[in-house]
Amino acid sequence: PLPGLPPTGHRRHVDPQARYRAVREETVARTQGLTAEDQTLQSMPDASPSKWHLAHTTWFFETFLLTPLVPGYRAFDPTFRYLFNSYYDGVGERWPRAARGLLSRPTVAQVMAYRDHVDQAMGAWLSGGIDAHAAALLELGLQHEQQHQELIITDIKHALLTHPFPPPVFPPPTPVVAPGVDDIVWRGMPSGLYAVGSAGGGTDFIFDNEGPRHKVWLEAFEIADRVVTNADYLAFMEDGGYRRADLWLSDGWAAAQAQGWQAPLYWRRGEEGAWHVGTLSGVRPVDPNDPVCHISHYEADAYARWAAARWSGARLPTEAEWEIAAGEPVTGPGTAHADDDSFHPRAVAGFYGDVWEWTASPYTGYPGYRPPEGAIGEYNGKFMSGQMVLRGGSRATPAGHIRKTYRNFFPPAARWQFSGIRLARTP
Amino acid sequence: PLPGLPPTGHRRHVDPQARYRAVREETVARTQGLTAEDQTLQSMPDASPSKWHLAHTTWFFETFLLTPLVPGYRAFDPTFRYLFNSYYDGVGERWPRAARGLLSRPTVAQVMAYRDHVDQAMGAWLSGGIDAHAAALLELGLQHEQQHQELIITDIKHALLTHPFPPPVFPPPTPVVAPGVDDIVWRGMPSGLYAVGSAGGGTDFIFDNEGPRHKVWLEAFEIADRVVTNADYLAFMEDGGYRRADLWLSDGWAAAQAQGWQAPLYWRRGEEGAWHVGTLSGVRPVDPNDPVCHISHYEADAYARWAAARWSGARLPTEAEWEIAAGEPVTGPGTAHADDDSFHPRAVAGFYGDVWEWTASPYTGYPGYRPPEGAIGEYNGKFMSGQMVLRGGSRATPAGHIRKTYRNFFPPAARWQFSGIRLARTP
Amino acid sequence: PLPGLPPTGHRRHVDPQARYRAVREETVARTQGLTAEDQTLQSMPDASPSKWHLAHTTWFFETFLLTPLVPGYRAFDPTFRYLFNSYYDGVGERWPRAARGLLSRPTVAQVMAYRDHVDQAMGAWLSGGIDAHAAALLELGLQHEQQHQELIITDIKHALLTHPFPPPVFPPPTPVVAPGVDDIVWRGMPSGLYAVGSAGGGTDFIFDNEGPRHKVWLEAFEIADRVVTNADYLAFMEDGGYRRADLWLSDGWAAAQAQGWQAPLYWRRGEEGAWHVGTLSGVRPVDPNDPVCHISHYEADAYARWAAARWSGARLPTEAEWEIAAGEPVTGPGTAHADDDSFHPRAVAGFYGDVWEWTASPYTGYPGYRPPEGAIGEYNGKFMSGQMVLRGGSRATPAGHIRKTYRNFFPPAARWQFSGIRLARTP
Amino acid sequence: PLPGLPPTGHRRHVDPQARYRAVREETVARTQGLTAEDQTLQSMPDASPSKWHLAHTTWFFETFLLTPLVPGYRAFDPTFRYLFNSYYDGVGERWPRAARGLLSRPTVAQVMAYRDHVDQAMGAWLSGGIDAHAAALLELGLQHEQQHQELIITDIKHALLTHPFPPPVFPPPTPVVAPGVDDIVWRGMPSGLYAVGSAGGGTDFIFDNEGPRHKVWLEAFEIADRVVTNADYLAFMEDGGYRRADLWLSDGWAAAQAQGWQAPLYWRRGEEGAWHVGTLSGVRPVDPNDPVCHISHYEADAYARWAAARWSGARLPTEAEWEIAAGEPVTGPGTAHADDDSFHPRAVAGFYGDVWEWTASPYTGYPGYRPPEGAIGEYNGKFMSGQMVLRGGSRATPAGHIRKTYRNFFPPAARWQFSGIRLARTP
Ligand SMILES: [Fe+3]
Ligand SMILES: [Fe+3]
Ligand SMILES: [Fe+3]
Ligand SMILES: [Fe+3]
Repeated sequence: PLPGLPPTGHRRHVDPQARYRAVREETVARTQGLTAEDQTLQSMPDASPSKWHLAHTTWFFETFLLTPLVPGYRAFDPTFRYLFNSYYDGVGERWPRAARGLLSRPTVAQVMAYRDHVDQAMGAWLSGGIDAHAAALLELGLQHEQQHQELIITDIKHALLTHPFPPPVFPPPTPVVAPGVDDIVWRGMPSGLYAVGSAGGGTDFIFDNEGPRHKVWLEAFEIADRVVTNADYLAFMEDGGYRRADLWLSDGWAAAQAQGWQAPLYWRRGEEGAWHVGTLSGVRPVDPNDPVCHISHYEADAYARWAAARWSGARLPTEAEWEIAAGEPVTGPGTAHADDDSFHPRAVAGFYGDVWEWTASPYTGYPGYRPPEGAIGEYNGKFMSGQMVLRGGSRATPAGHIRKTYRNFFPPAARWQFSGIRLARTP
Repeated sequence: PLPGLPPTGHRRHVDPQARYRAVREETVARTQGLTAEDQTLQSMPDASPSKWHLAHTTWFFETFLLTPLVPGYRAFDPTFRYLFNSYYDGVGERWPRAARGLLSRPTVAQVMAYRDHVDQAMGAWLSGGIDAHAAALLELGLQHEQQHQELIITDIKHALLTHPFPPPVFPPPTPVVAPGVDDIVWRGMPSGLYAVGSAGGGTDFIFDNEGPRHKVWLEAFEIADRVVTNADYLAFMEDGGYRRADLWLSDGWAAAQAQGWQAPLYWRRGEEGAWHVGTLSGVRPVDPNDPVCHISHYEADAYARWAAARWSGARLPTEAEWEIAAGEPVTGPGTAHADDDSFHPRAVAGFYGDVWEWTASPYTGYPGYRPPEGAIGEYNGKFMSGQMVLRGGSRATPAGHIRKTYRNFFPPAARWQFSGIRLARTP
Repeated sequence: PLPGLPPTGHRRHVDPQARYRAVREETVARTQGLTAEDQTLQSMPDASPSKWHLAHTTWFFETFLLTPLVPGYRAFDPTFRYLFNSYYDGVGERWPRAARGLLSRPTVAQVMAYRDHVDQAMGAWLSGGIDAHAAALLELGLQHEQQHQELIITDIKHALLTHPFPPPVFPPPTPVVAPGVDDIVWRGMPSGLYAVGSAGGGTDFIFDNEGPRHKVWLEAFEIADRVVTNADYLAFMEDGGYRRADLWLSDGWAAAQAQGWQAPLYWRRGEEGAWHVGTLSGVRPVDPNDPVCHISHYEADAYARWAAARWSGARLPTEAEWEIAAGEPVTGPGTAHADDDSFHPRAVAGFYGDVWEWTASPYTGYPGYRPPEGAIGEYNGKFMSGQMVLRGGSRATPAGHIRKTYRNFFPPAARWQFSGIRLARTP
Repeated sequence: PLPGLPPTGHRRHVDPQARYRAVREETVARTQGLTAEDQTLQSMPDASPSKWHLAHTTWFFETFLLTPLVPGYRAFDPTFRYLFNSYYDGVGERWPRAARGLLSRPTVAQVMAYRDHVDQAMGAWLSGGIDAHAAALLELGLQHEQQHQELIITDIKHALLTHPFPPPVFPPPTPVVAPGVDDIVWRGMPSGLYAVGSAGGGTDFIFDNEGPRHKVWLEAFEIADRVVTNADYLAFMEDGGYRRADLWLSDGWAAAQAQGWQAPLYWRRGEEGAWHVGTLSGVRPVDPNDPVCHISHYEADAYARWAAARWSGARLPTEAEWEIAAGEPVTGPGTAHADDDSFHPRAVAGFYGDVWEWTASPYTGYPGYRPPEGAIGEYNGKFMSGQMVLRGGSRATPAGHIRKTYRNFFPPAARWQFSGIRLARTP
């Protein structure tokens, strides 16, 4: 067994080659509407160009699988080790993150050739069968690529919506004959000593930060059966939510003032004053039934404080509460995650696949957590500072990358992810 | 009973007037070595001029006690409501924090007159006897002033050590015939469901953030019987601790590079290469037996990761572990906190009164925590984001302001507080 | 005659349509080696993406000629008025200069379609014959486009040399069997009251800032017969030129320290310590006989001060001295400006066409200068502050855009233009 | 004769000791209303604390006279060489300019002791008689101190007016029974070859930058007989002067937007909307007859462009035009410069002593100018870049420091000097 990596077992009973191909194709599919110029943009240091994601995910397989494990493998281009290393100090020096948008070379075409080169080498290698250690690394590479699939969407959305006349690059969301959204129903959960996180060892992959499974005492709490909608959030806005310092964390208020927040990211006033929202399918009127999305943790927290005037004790859930309440995910037809290719979150019941839900929990290691040895150990552990946990997965999260113990994390001021709100409360 | 403020009971069996006088005098005593010019300096946005602390603590009594509770009280100067409000949005607009050093007026002499004015009004009012609500506010004001007593020391230390030829303003620490420091002894603690925090309601004051008392499940752990010394820390430095990215949190490494950290704050190389440390009593050679001090959470965390090579599983304790292990504080003669007027931390056993100890816990509200209503509710709650908890108290913490459930908090990059390290480990 | 625009007369005896086509084709020719990704880059706020230059020069014709003068002309895309306005407040709002690199749309292909659209409209219009006013505007548009032809080269050079592994995009310079460069010969000029600048009114175009022609008293001076070479400049560097504050203007020294200047822009140490220079044809060893290039006014000034130790009184010439000494330009075969398509300046005699030569003169209006009315008046006048005049033209300057009275201007810290040094001295 | 310093001759027929004492006393007199706290403030990097000026002017005598010329002189404090060096690289390292406000030590009292120490040494030395070289350096030191006398006023004005409730520290200006101000009368000057600057060699001191005297050809011009008043400037403001980009230099417009300029520095709207102005004597209504003051070169230039609509060809004068038109200064009773101790400029005729007048001339060396050798050569020469010349002297300029050829210089965005406008025009 590979120290620090989960055992793989007979995961998913899927042919590794087929799974590898399917994941790799999904990544490219997400860039189909984008021009070479689009794929070169970096609109802020936190976001990366699409073609960088295409190359970096490929670099991961080259660096952590092909180079160490496949005798005779020859790197496609020796400069890529430097250009497409994201943050692995153990791998060596790297091009500064904030300057990724200054790399016109390799071009998109050259990046696609790089993908082909690595895919062929991977295909040949996988066809010979791989051991458990290699299978664990393979799965890690695929999960890694799935994470970047979501980032391709969030980053290009940010880049294209920086344009004063943003182009539509994906089909519009399927029209909904909206039945309206019912008021929140609160589900009660009893106090008790609960087990949280995953022990690994099963048939499904987990990231190291999802374990160890451990005990947490929870007092009785209630949790909302649905996320907060745009209609809910508009009530907060109209009640002066962005002007009342008393609703905000001190850092949140400072961020809101410094950056001039007046509404969720991508919202803008239309000509007659109505709110519109920029999407990857163009600018459209805000749908009151859609989940509120692209808000920071600070806004989620301020909303919850404001909502306590209606629902006494309303607040954000901790990640332990969320996990205990959420149960196992259901995806597929009829669920939030039945993607219509627009990557636009729609109003649904359930805990999974519409928007990532900010929790009240800072991102730290679970009791007993230790990162794996070596560069792979940098994957999660070194980011356990200054970020908040989000749970549940969004419309942009690939199918098969959503699970109960999954811990997403971003700084509390981040708004460009598909992030929203679910309320909890203490009775 | 005052909503949101702890009941006071017959706290400390002390005459309120005597207690008020004693606390107020201690504040002034801490500025005795400082010139008017010294007291005007602000060396960074996080720190405040000494005279600002003298005025702001006075403003607290004027704003939250005299003005609302004492009929006919007349404010000393109407502009002070604006100038000396620290961060209370509920009180109104205020002068920007980062510009406190630009206020030459009121002068130190005028600030002392302000203190006299308020002290006389307070004395007159207290002499008539006060009810429980007022007593609770009085105690809050005194605890607040004690917090600023420590900040007077940390802030002026930062300001004076910015000077290329720092003046000594306090007497040197008492020489120690150092018996040396023994190696760390680990104390084991069993797993279990522990109660953490304070329920209030007793005879002693607590801040709102120390409660509610609540249950926490802890796995078995061990904790060091003493803090990390300069000798311990020098071993980390000499082993390349400041050059090895693998030891650091990602944000920590970025901060260390951006700010050029090579050693604790205030350390500098002497002429022959030996480390010296700037203190309020002048620059002196680093004493290997002193606790390491003026380090950030990031450095504490990196040190702990490095130390795990020696003590398997070494890490920082959580604040719950710290509190369970620490027991009740003992201060006074023969303890760490027997202040020798130098405000320089010295090597001692025990959990209290030498240096604040960084924990692994982000500062959040305890389960069920809600801030009090009104401006007083801004005291603690709105800062529960982006900071880490420290425990134990330092040499600069006033006697009587140290207790088991006390939660200090600062951003992880902060170094100007008297902050150090205690290790824990998972067996 | 058009107020504020020079008369055109029978300029160049050239067919306007042919001239228009030739200039427009040269612009596109300069982008032939560039990918769509290259053309999208903006490596600093001062520089613009290649495709932006392609579009903005087209916008100039659309805005100042087609729209006002051609009835029924229909703009290619109404958003381009906003996107491709550079700095004309009289034309309206515009996209911020520093964010030009965030516009992936229009794509390069769309920009080429825009050029075609405008070229067809221009061709149709010109075929009908135009009056003097229109001819003057036409010539202004062509001169404007020629200026941007040079900027296309300087800006993409900056962008591509930001890349850690810069790609060659132009053919290498023709190898020179260098005969060596002779030492500077000083040409004496007598004192007197000289006429400087151009009165316009002849057959050749001038920019408004080249006039009025006016009298300047000059004391006798001497001027070098050639520009400073890399070999000359290396002597300055090796004599500590970048470490001796006494050689520098105060602002220059501050810029050099802040930006870490150690050599001309694009110079880097090779593996064995020898200096190499990044060019559009790849990285090559510094040729000692080439003119020193890509230096700031501050460096030129420091060099001149250093050179005074050898040539007593050495300094930069004023622009009046330069103009009086330079005489009329000679370009074409056998001169500096015989471009070999590499855009790499080579060592030559003469005042024109190798590198722009920094003068000692701040850029101000000549006595009696007044900008034309309207948006066209913003072309030159509003930049007469904080910049220094350069004279002579570089290898990247298009043929036909070099003349004796031409005033180029850039801030004294600018290094990305093809800028070098000619010395003068007072006997 | 001292190379690079002007000969002194029998300057002013004044006893050097008496003159030294008089100048030194005037400096201290200007700080009399200031507290120790006031004297420690630095409100921006361009300005210095009052006590720094008191010490730095003393350092000048210690460094350039006592130390090199007086055997056995012992420096008051060896750290002052470092602390109070302003910008002389030839003298060695120095404390960063922007951090002068972080030096609480030496205190004001210690600085005064420093002044006494140096004054006694200077007195003893001067009593023995000095040679011409020493006399030239002495005069340079006194002229230097006079420059800082003005800066003491401008810098403390900036610092105290940063305070939200600025204290009055000087007596109010003498009330004027204002007779009103007549409209501008234009004085014509013929074209010709004029001599500008000073050849030195007379009985009066000049700075090196005032020479060499040289020939300048001027076309005929007209110049206003008085400076622009607040009433004049209000007309510009009310006509949208701060909102019309077409009136501004490009850099000026950028500065105005970035810094939010809406009026001269220190102007603020009173409660009923009327303009008030902050002075060293408190906040008072803007007097329409006072000269407009505390404006940048950019504002002066924009005003002149606006004024051209009324006076065709209106513009700022060049410094040569100003000097030719101004004639010799007249100061003393009945003139602008008859200081009433308020340092507040009042409406007067004449070219001298009310406000510094921005010219259209960038600050460069006159033809043939070379700075003196050594550290003294850094006094003026290295600042000849990026600044504009001002002429005439202000109310804050000490008597005896005003002369026809005097060249003051500041960056075009500077507003904290006593700077105003005189118009010229080309007929
Ligand atoms: Fe990655
Ligand atoms: Fe406080
Ligand atoms: Fe242009
Ligand atoms: Fe000075």
